[in-house]
Amino acid sequence: MAEIGSPSPDRSPSSFPIMAASRSPLAPPHFPDMPAVAGVASAVGACGLKADGAADLWLAVMAPAGAVAGVLTRSRCPSAPVDWCRGALGQGRVRAIVVNAGNANAYTGAAGRATVEATAAAAAGLAGCGPEQVMIASTGVIGEPLDAARLTGPLPALWRAAAPGGWPAAAAAIGTTDTFPKGASAQTTIHGQAVTVVGIAKGSGMIAPDMATMLAFVFTDAAIPAPVLQRLTERANAVSFNCLTVDGDTSTSDTLLVVATGAAGHPPVADADDPALAGFADTLARVMVDLARQVAGDGEGARKRITIMVSGAADPDMARQVGLAIANSPLVKTAIAGEDANWGRIVMAVGKSGAPTDRDRLAIRIGGVAVAAEGRAVAGYDETPVARHLRGHEIDIAVDLGLGPSAATVWTCDLTHGYIDINASYRS
Amino acid sequence: MAEIGSPSPDRSPSSFPIMAASRSPLAPPHFPDMPAVAGVASAVGACGLKADGAADLWLAVMAPAGAVAGVLTRSRCPSAPVDWCRGALGQGRVRAIVVNAGNANAYTGAAGRATVEATAAAAAGLAGCGPEQVMIASTGVIGEPLDAARLTGPLPALWRAAAPGGWPAAAAAIGTTDTFPKGASAQTTIHGQAVTVVGIAKGSGMIAPDMATMLAFVFTDAAIPAPVLQRLTERANAVSFNCLTVDGDTSTSDTLLVVATGAAGHPPVADADDPALAGFADTLARVMVDLARQVAGDGEGARKRITIMVSGAADPDMARQVGLAIANSPLVKTAIAGEDANWGRIVMAVGKSGAPTDRDRLAIRIGGVAVAAEGRAVAGYDETPVARHLRGHEIDIAVDLGLGPSAATVWTCDLTHGYIDINASYRS
Repeated sequence: MAEIGSPSPDRSPSSFPIMAASRSPLAPPHFPDMPAVAGVASAVGACGLKADGAADLWLAVMAPAGAVAGVLTRSRCPSAPVDWCRGALGQGRVRAIVVNAGNANAYTGAAGRATVEATAAAAAGLAGCGPEQVMIASTGVIGEPLDAARLTGPLPALWRAAAPGGWPAAAAAIGTTDTFPKGASAQTTIHGQAVTVVGIAKGSGMIAPDMATMLAFVFTDAAIPAPVLQRLTERANAVSFNCLTVDGDTSTSDTLLVVATGAAGHPPVADADDPALAGFADTLARVMVDLARQVAGDGEGARKRITIMVSGAADPDMARQVGLAIANSPLVKTAIAGEDANWGRIVMAVGKSGAPTDRDRLAIRIGGVAVAAEGRAVAGYDETPVARHLRGHEIDIAVDLGLGPSAATVWTCDLTHGYIDINASYRS
Repeated sequence: MAEIGSPSPDRSPSSFPIMAASRSPLAPPHFPDMPAVAGVASAVGACGLKADGAADLWLAVMAPAGAVAGVLTRSRCPSAPVDWCRGALGQGRVRAIVVNAGNANAYTGAAGRATVEATAAAAAGLAGCGPEQVMIASTGVIGEPLDAARLTGPLPALWRAAAPGGWPAAAAAIGTTDTFPKGASAQTTIHGQAVTVVGIAKGSGMIAPDMATMLAFVFTDAAIPAPVLQRLTERANAVSFNCLTVDGDTSTSDTLLVVATGAAGHPPVADADDPALAGFADTLARVMVDLARQVAGDGEGARKRITIMVSGAADPDMARQVGLAIANSPLVKTAIAGEDANWGRIVMAVGKSGAPTDRDRLAIRIGGVAVAAEGRAVAGYDETPVARHLRGHEIDIAVDLGLGPSAATVWTCDLTHGYIDINASYRS
């Protein structure tokens, strides 16, 4: 998580805590087998920001420069790396990405900006490119100075070590309170040419979609100009990371970067709506949804992943608004943590969402079982199968607003004692 | 709290749980000594909705009818009593108020509406008034049918027993998860005539201001026409209950009623802005702020009350928006529960508030100690006095946005294991 701390003089930056939280029950059995992406090499190292000396620095190198698109936090208190990427993304090319975990370099003033500039200059010097072709992301404690030398010192060695693939190591290096590394990949074709899409992401608290949440990096060997890639990235983000919340707290550091190296060798496609890109657009969204669901399943303290399907909305924004109101309700999340079929709290959350819903058209299903409709509990409602569903790890809530044709799916997790344990003592 | 449940056939309505939560450390030493209000009589009884047979039904009688004003939840899934009051408030007079705890009569469809109508008719029959002069409020489990006989049966005995005062019993009867009864009173003058203002309220979860939150009832012997009383009530609500949040979950049942009997005998004042009402307006707001602070101090699981003062805003709405973003942040609330001076989370919450703030103009104080300003931690920041402040029960956070002249104060509480304990097993 892009976490926040106090620059109290008695803390060394290296004391950033690694959570001992047990592995999420939603964790996949193993990290997916993900192929290398032609034109992308990477390496990880330790710059001493994680307390246990674990890898906390990741360098990705694109040679030649790839097209880059991105979505950054809408926080009004963005980190120095977010400010940097917002400026650098405009020129649309990326030669290197430098990411550290353990210090967010957020709310660090001029010193934080200087650290980002020094890091970009160092990577640019190695790559022989302009600094604006270096993207930077940091996650960890906020408000604590980040010494540029911690990042620039190891860069030459990482540059020499950079090799294709290495996704498990990269996903682990960028993690903070995550209990498992997150990766997803898929293949598609453009003009008959096979194309690979690979992504990694980290959570796992301070997760709220406004927009893009946490850090996520997606690479493809497709040949797609930056403006087209930006359109496709924003569309995919709208149905993936932007439909994800753990605690409703939007990070200062949220960064999603999507890189297209063009190494696949198909003719470039210059229009986001070109049918030749339909398969790629779907694949990009599928990879990002997979990553978003993994982040929800690894929300701090999560024991259950909650998938909220809202249908019957007048428009997609209304569907998402209602879904997020349910997903961010502490009362809904604690009831599910307690395996309590307390569906009235879903009614409450719909009612407070701010969307112009109609109580008497609302229909609610839990685990596929109809529990409420037409302004009351369904006749002969039997809680038994719902209670059984709630004892599992994957919880499905379906809400039909009965107002229109639009739908949205939102992902979150339950609110448990684990979240309090992690966040009441984050810095201790 | 206006709580929510499942109408599972295996639960009898009388199984509504009374929380065994320990008394809040923010509780006042004793219920305040509050005078009777001329023209108001009340009585309490048990109608079997609380599991332990405690009083859960309250009747207040105004003779003659008093002027009434109200603010009701903005939930799109309001309870049947809220729908009733919304219709009945228009005529501006009240002879009786009937309140039950243990069942919110929310999301109960036509049967719920029939129960409200039967209850109003029964009270109106006793009072010899029209049913529209009976106001009704219910709090407790949502989605569970409420048998009208439970309320109408005891009403005649309560009518006979109604007597002046009795505020401690009334405040206790309307409570659910509250760990202490909430009351406040004050005296003022209108045209030189002494006037009394008395209020009671209940929390303590599903508390979010949109608008009026939980149940609150205020009585005065002032002589104020209903339209004027409505204006004054809305103004006082804007700086009291509407600046209060426990968990950001807006109840289906939120109801604030303010009754003016006119028994004080001063000449009626027909203009809300008449200087003769200035003292009364201040007193009304002071009583409601007192009640709001008590609700914050009794939020479910609360161990600390958090007062957030936002200044330097461009307008009052911006100040309130930022204050509520901080007050509703689970990461801020868990850090304070952990007595962790993790001020970066306040930066995060300001950043996510949606208000057009400026990171580099922001200034943050905790317990009066400057911790951050000009986009970074203050030079030579010493965490020691802040940590000492956080070990107390009353936590003060001051945020200056550096943008304008407006300010707002928001009240909330910390987020503790107690909240999870209460809400993960609410119905069990």
